[in-house]
Amino acid sequence: MEKPNLHKISPNFTGQGVNPDLAIERKNPSFNVERLTNILDGGAERTQIRRTVDAWLQSDPEFSRENQYFQSQNERYEGAIRKSFYLAKKMNEMGWVEGGPHQEFCFRALSSDMAFNVHRVFLKSIMGLGTDEQIAKWVPLAEKFYIAGTYAQTELGHGTYLRGLETTATFDVATQEFILNTPSLSAMKWWPGDLGRTATHAVVFAQLYLKGKCYGMHPFLMQIRSLRDHSPLPGVTVGDIGPKMNFENVDNGFLMLKNVRVPRENMLARFSQVLPDGQYKKQGSDKINYLTMIVVRVYMLRSEVVLTLLKACTIAIRYSAVRRQSELKPGDPEAKILDYQTQQQKLLPQLATAYAFHFACQYMTKIFERAYTETKEGKFDLLPELHALASGIKVIATEYSSSGVEVCRKACGGHGYSLLSGLPSLYTRLVASCTYEGENTVLLLQTARFLIKCFAMAKDGQPVPMSVAYLSSKNFGKCQAQEKRDFQNPDVYIDAYRQRAFRMLRSAAIKLQSLIQLGTTQHEAWNRCSVQLAQAAMAHSHYIVVEQFVKALQWYEEELAIHRILKRLCDLFALHGMYLNMGDFMQDGYLSTEQTAMVTESYLELLPVIRKDAVPLVDAFDFSDASLNSALGSYDGRVYERLYEWAKKSPTNQQKNQVFETYLKPLFQNALSKL
Amino acid sequence: MEKPNLHKISPNFTGQGVNPDLAIERKNPSFNVERLTNILDGGAERTQIRRTVDAWLQSDPEFSRENQYFQSQNERYEGAIRKSFYLAKKMNEMGWVEGGPHQEFCFRALSSDMAFNVHRVFLKSIMGLGTDEQIAKWVPLAEKFYIAGTYAQTELGHGTYLRGLETTATFDVATQEFILNTPSLSAMKWWPGDLGRTATHAVVFAQLYLKGKCYGMHPFLMQIRSLRDHSPLPGVTVGDIGPKMNFENVDNGFLMLKNVRVPRENMLARFSQVLPDGQYKKQGSDKINYLTMIVVRVYMLRSEVVLTLLKACTIAIRYSAVRRQSELKPGDPEAKILDYQTQQQKLLPQLATAYAFHFACQYMTKIFERAYTETKEGKFDLLPELHALASGIKVIATEYSSSGVEVCRKACGGHGYSLLSGLPSLYTRLVASCTYEGENTVLLLQTARFLIKCFAMAKDGQPVPMSVAYLSSKNFGKCQAQEKRDFQNPDVYIDAYRQRAFRMLRSAAIKLQSLIQLGTTQHEAWNRCSVQLAQAAMAHSHYIVVEQFVKALQWYEEELAIHRILKRLCDLFALHGMYLNMGDFMQDGYLSTEQTAMVTESYLELLPVIRKDAVPLVDAFDFSDASLNSALGSYDGRVYERLYEWAKKSPTNQQKNQVFETYLKPLFQNALSKL
Repeated sequence: MEKPNLHKISPNFTGQGVNPDLAIERKNPSFNVERLTNILDGGAERTQIRRTVDAWLQSDPEFSRENQYFQSQNERYEGAIRKSFYLAKKMNEMGWVEGGPHQEFCFRALSSDMAFNVHRVFLKSIMGLGTDEQIAKWVPLAEKFYIAGTYAQTELGHGTYLRGLETTATFDVATQEFILNTPSLSAMKWWPGDLGRTATHAVVFAQLYLKGKCYGMHPFLMQIRSLRDHSPLPGVTVGDIGPKMNFENVDNGFLMLKNVRVPRENMLARFSQVLPDGQYKKQGSDKINYLTMIVVRVYMLRSEVVLTLLKACTIAIRYSAVRRQSELKPGDPEAKILDYQTQQQKLLPQLATAYAFHFACQYMTKIFERAYTETKEGKFDLLPELHALASGIKVIATEYSSSGVEVCRKACGGHGYSLLSGLPSLYTRLVASCTYEGENTVLLLQTARFLIKCFAMAKDGQPVPMSVAYLSSKNFGKCQAQEKRDFQNPDVYIDAYRQRAFRMLRSAAIKLQSLIQLGTTQHEAWNRCSVQLAQAAMAHSHYIVVEQFVKALQWYEEELAIHRILKRLCDLFALHGMYLNMGDFMQDGYLSTEQTAMVTESYLELLPVIRKDAVPLVDAFDFSDASLNSALGSYDGRVYERLYEWAKKSPTNQQKNQVFETYLKPLFQNALSKL
Repeated sequence: MEKPNLHKISPNFTGQGVNPDLAIERKNPSFNVERLTNILDGGAERTQIRRTVDAWLQSDPEFSRENQYFQSQNERYEGAIRKSFYLAKKMNEMGWVEGGPHQEFCFRALSSDMAFNVHRVFLKSIMGLGTDEQIAKWVPLAEKFYIAGTYAQTELGHGTYLRGLETTATFDVATQEFILNTPSLSAMKWWPGDLGRTATHAVVFAQLYLKGKCYGMHPFLMQIRSLRDHSPLPGVTVGDIGPKMNFENVDNGFLMLKNVRVPRENMLARFSQVLPDGQYKKQGSDKINYLTMIVVRVYMLRSEVVLTLLKACTIAIRYSAVRRQSELKPGDPEAKILDYQTQQQKLLPQLATAYAFHFACQYMTKIFERAYTETKEGKFDLLPELHALASGIKVIATEYSSSGVEVCRKACGGHGYSLLSGLPSLYTRLVASCTYEGENTVLLLQTARFLIKCFAMAKDGQPVPMSVAYLSSKNFGKCQAQEKRDFQNPDVYIDAYRQRAFRMLRSAAIKLQSLIQLGTTQHEAWNRCSVQLAQAAMAHSHYIVVEQFVKALQWYEEELAIHRILKRLCDLFALHGMYLNMGDFMQDGYLSTEQTAMVTESYLELLPVIRKDAVPLVDAFDFSDASLNSALGSYDGRVYERLYEWAKKSPTNQQKNQVFETYLKPLFQNALSKL
């Protein structure tokens, strides 16, 4: 029998009935699985809290996700509201405070089942943008759900580009009110969560007009539906935008306003206000508020994006240790698919990527905290760098994680296409993150703008921010590796990533400069370089992730086994990235043909080494079966039993098949006499 | 006003109300759009037939897809059955024959709405594997839908590897029956379409046992449900496998058999039969049957895979000509997103890919037809090459098309995430093709096996099949291009693709050989080279697609404008592939750093050139609005109007919101006194 050892306290472990093909994978991990779990959780104490939360969520039937894959949009929405209120009540009873670790782990486990996500943004925007009086009036109401709010910014015709928003708020001195209008169809608010069927109030962003002059975007807190019967207020048209690729739990909505009047006091006025006589007054700096936007991205990466990749790896790797197919050796029983090099090459780089982003998020959290402290002290120096970093890391993390989840899903073959595997919904949900919280191409070009600026500064001999220090390098020579094992030296691959980022940025900068010198306008030149600029920003972000993974390794130098396995994952992440982008690394002969062969061999030889620990490495994520909600990925590996049990519960098997009576029976009768 | 000119007869064109942003894109196509449509359709006559069919489908409310994105799995299934019968009746009335062009275009337009796809495979398998008596008995019943059939091959635990299938058929001489059994859970038939809720009969594949000896997989025709009341026959357990990522119209099912008896006459016995005394008798060659499998792949590529990419390009390009965002030039109105280089670089390579695969499918159809004729004459020489080609092209077409569709979807930003855009379901459906009809990695390795064999033959100086003639080359030098426009010379890029395929195959072959010489077993060595072998097979297939696109250009040399635009698309396809895989092309200095810069520039400079014709190029596909079923992609470009109109029809806006009464109202009441 397998030793349950360190998983004793995991809510998954029932002590029996584990598929022997999976049990054997857990026999000899090269490292202490529990210790790695603690590292990932941020300490043994947090592991304990998470397990308490997971065990409770798994045991309470209110949170059951058993029927999730069979539910309609309507049922998902109703369930999300119900669970949200139930959780709030329970947390209260348990004494788990808002913002504490218990809540964090609840949300982590339940996010795709919850409502009121944007209600929370509504709340935070009042706290961030409102005056003390506004906060005192509205926040308690929203916290107790006496009102439900939404944050209405994007419009049907306008997304990322805020200046293009069309909604207007015109101040009427006579009545001391703003008159809000949707001047065209494309100006309709579109997409805000919790708006479609829930919200009574909204923070609406609109162009402020005072005496005919536009003062730009401002936030207005307004009521949109009746608290008594939920009907839209006069002048308000509101509804649900219909089905999406996922997020059925969320009622994304539309909102049209026709001469809706909002009292002067309802413009959120921490940073600017309109005086009774219609004068405009700016006050303070909204830079700290700008930080809030960045922290949302960092939080989203940690609690949603990377987590989803971890889940997909868990499901696909466990399944691949159980699924058998074809002969690897003639006469042998069918082999585990995890033993095929092609399968290892699909899954293990995703696993390494998941670990890489875990540490990248830690790094981002740390420098965000520093920036937050400094900003509060009135020092804003870190902000541009932080913004560029957060944008770049957001892009690489969402792109790599979503494509990685899809690689995992496809690697599970036909069964990965069944909703019951859990994988399709992980992908369809995660991929949205490439678009929300800043569309990825737009963000990359923002990072590129920062990099180009730093590149020019470095060229002029000026000091540059830490994360782009390499831009001051005079030149990069050739790669120094002599043999393939040199490529498992972090100094070697960090140098490779650094010179790649440098070279790509430099060549985009040179092109940009020469276009401008040839008379192309600044903007046209920027556009004609934008593909290369975006790629340079990606290469920069890639370098940061590699470097931060290497730096994180240092914390574990004393723990040999942990250090060794993390180092292998770090090597794999770095080498896989080189393998896939070899052309970038070969520019100017930085890598020779012989060296590219060493990279490839070094990369491929890591696969069977890490494969031995593949199951322990995903076990270390310690997801409860309930939170995976996958017939393929449960801890016990009883894949086929679960697929069959779950399929039987499908409504298609529970209902009478009317199609037979109506369409088939009249035809089939004709065969009776002939068979 | 825009000139409707050549689109007069398209069912989309209503003559008015086209969004001016889209209308202007149609003003000056560089080529005759109608001519290109005819080329794509395979002649003006076929265009005419297709339009007749499309117009009819678009006008008949029975085929309306208006509510498709709001429907449950159950409703989609019911609709598919209803439409299938309706279509069969109508086709009969119209005199549109089975297998004729009208039917082809009906299926093309309606495939995702139809049932009985696997019923047709059932029918064909009887025709292919049955004796004349079996065909005479069963085919007429199935053709008239007096019985409904399915093709039950894959099992819960077994997919691509047929020898691993577990279902058994044991002959009982006493009763002259086969006894069919599902010996374990993993042996349950799983996935067959039309099985879950429809089929009365099935062709079941099982290991044939005669007197205790296994004779391998054979097909058995058996009844599984009552024709009277549709209940499962004794010993049969059957049902639906539950929800999937798409294909809600299909009732994929499971089937378990316990001592189900099938008369001896029901083993499909064209190629082997069991005599009354239990003797086994083989007869004839099943090679022609093997061809059937290949033709299914070719047909699937043409009628489903490539078509889906064409649709996604149509939607995303039309939307990008209408959607405006941000300033390209300060002070100007927001720019069309299609004018951004980053957007062009997302969409236009997909468009080029769509055209490339169109011609690749034509090539495959042609050589398939040759092979079919030869095989009927008893010549089987072409079969291994055809199999390798069809496998490789299936893989590259499904991989590139599905990732291309997803690129198109993401390029539409938030609205691409709405089901109403039509894009999510195009992706979730298409991506299944990477797994069905042969899992892609498995297929690539089959192609690789053929290539390795040919490589060895070429080395020995033996003649090799036409498509791999390049393996006989002694060596490839360096790329001859001197300046960037040289990369728009097909000879230059064909040579580049050819040497890449050669080099990748050679290095995999050398590694394979040296592992074996070092004492690694054949199978282990194959496994350790499999990543590189699969890539070599991909590179070979890529080369074939490029070369066939170039060859197709020759047919249009007389038609200057058509030739010019197709040549640009061909260049773009070839250069984009080089740009993305630059490392492969730089091996051994085939491309220098300077030449890679030329490739990049040459590629990027093509984008704005093709962009001018982007809308006419997708108009040439001539999809009816009904078949696109997209709020973003209609011919008239009235994107925002349609999104809003469609959203309003969502059931979430039609039903009373019970959530308010149950959960929200009791809380909101508390705010009444405070606001």
